[in-house]
Amino acid sequence: MAQEGIPIIISAPSGAGKTTICQALAQRLPDLNFSVSHTTRKPRENEKEGVDYHFVSKETFLEMTNRNKFLEWAKIHDNYYGTGLKNIEDTLKKGKDLVLELDIQGVESLRALKYEGVYVFILPPSLEELEQRLTRRGTESGDQIQRRLEVGKNEIAQSHLYDYAVTNVNVDESVDTILAIIHAEKNRIRRYQPDCPEIRKILESGPA
Amino acid sequence: MAQEGIPIIISAPSGAGKTTICQALAQRLPDLNFSVSHTTRKPRENEKEGVDYHFVSKETFLEMTNRNKFLEWAKIHDNYYGTGLKNIEDTLKKGKDLVLELDIQGVESLRALKYEGVYVFILPPSLEELEQRLTRRGTESGDQIQRRLEVGKNEIAQSHLYDYAVTNVNVDESVDTILAIIHAEKNRIRRYQPDCPEIRKILESGPA
Repeated sequence: MAQEGIPIIISAPSGAGKTTICQALAQRLPDLNFSVSHTTRKPRENEKEGVDYHFVSKETFLEMTNRNKFLEWAKIHDNYYGTGLKNIEDTLKKGKDLVLELDIQGVESLRALKYEGVYVFILPPSLEELEQRLTRRGTESGDQIQRRLEVGKNEIAQSHLYDYAVTNVNVDESVDTILAIIHAEKNRIRRYQPDCPEIRKILESGPA
Repeated sequence: MAQEGIPIIISAPSGAGKTTICQALAQRLPDLNFSVSHTTRKPRENEKEGVDYHFVSKETFLEMTNRNKFLEWAKIHDNYYGTGLKNIEDTLKKGKDLVLELDIQGVESLRALKYEGVYVFILPPSLEELEQRLTRRGTESGDQIQRRLEVGKNEIAQSHLYDYAVTNVNVDESVDTILAIIHAEKNRIRRYQPDCPEIRKILESGPA
């Protein structure tokens, strides 16, 4: 049996560069799959069904929660967001790695479930830089930016929930680090399955 | 304060290619330090004092054990082997990573001490290949090779003592994997210290 794929959970404070990093990661590792979340919120301009999100009605979403179709889900403001189980399991069983972009709330849920994965937290180089990046976006007011910064600080304080931290000074270097993490984790003793059946058998049977 | 260096403990069954891998690793990462063990056995041809081993008398060795100068030591056949503490600590405190090439007995001692490090086990591609590599060396009789193979199998069965396994099909690929492991481990949340003091402070203080 081939080694199962690894779920790679990535979070970051808003403005730390998660989206850019994930896009660069997809380019550098075309085999990598990205989980597409379900949401009940309306698509923003440029957002595509099945790419950015699966956009569903509230009724569909709640029916899915009733039928345990989500690995985790949450209500944020007035909208529901969830990570569908089926796609994840299908992908991992094929031996393909899968990136899940989640917020802290999602990570807390997965940790509570003792969900086995590699948890990566992206840090900004500094709070000043984080503020500048949020300002540069130009999509929010000063108040909203200050609120995001406060939320960001609280998220950074929760980074003990993660296995790895990556400071995003430079996107290429951050992607290098995440690729190294994925490479290393494939060789973690607890999930490592050598190709040679004889050696695999000795590994699995343990000490005589 | 700079992040401390990481002790990287590498073991392998005899013939799996540990020495070749470590030599290639030293070339690829010139900043990496390698611990030089103490031994009471006589130097072999080509072995250099301070490079391959610190060759010491039995009296000196035992005096060092009495003064707790070793991280771990063992008597193998009629000779003593030990890993001196001072050099290791000095190197790590400077923020430099350090490779310790140890046998399973040494790793068991370190695990018993709960010694924090990254433990890597090198696997041969197959037992057949391991036997061929031992035979190709031409230094041992068929009986000795068979004994080494048996010891090797027992060592593979102990690989749960390690954090990572690397199958040495190709030296360059094995070195790539070890470099990825070192890179990833530098970003492990429990030892990660971001450059920005403000962010480091939030990380260290944890949730409010």
